[in-house]
Amino acid sequence: MQNTRDITRRFGQRIKTLRAQAGLTQMALASRCNLDRTYLSGIERGVRNPTLEIISIIAAGLGIPLTVLFDY
Amino acid sequence: MQNTRDITRRFGQRIKTLRAQAGLTQMALASRCNLDRTYLSGIERGVRNPTLEIISIIAAGLGIPLTVLFDY
Repeated sequence: MQNTRDITRRFGQRIKTLRAQAGLTQMALASRCNLDRTYLSGIERGVRNPTLEIISIIAAGLGIPLTVLFDY
Repeated sequence: MQNTRDITRRFGQRIKTLRAQAGLTQMALASRCNLDRTYLSGIERGVRNPTLEIISIIAAGLGIPLTVLFDY
């Protein structure tokens, strides 16, 4: 079992990568998700521990299924 | 975008299915994860919105990658 910081950091990196692949800025993705940009930034930096609800909202904002989001 | 309750309910059903496939009781899985059984029960019933950390802990307790957990 990895520690929590590893998990949130890897997850954040994954979001950042997928967002860049989609050609979206943090502001654009945050806006699509109705999230604050600084909160999204915190997720990408691995300093936030998002809930299932937020994770699902981000997947929808990226237009991808959750399986793809966790395929890292 | 599905609503939040749908997401947590589907996720809970998925946990319940995978736990049963693994031949584990709620108590056994909760114990492996160091979670309270009533909390795990709430997740399975879809009334809890678990964090990424908790989701990862449950995947580890089930011995499966996150991609499998979200493959529903």
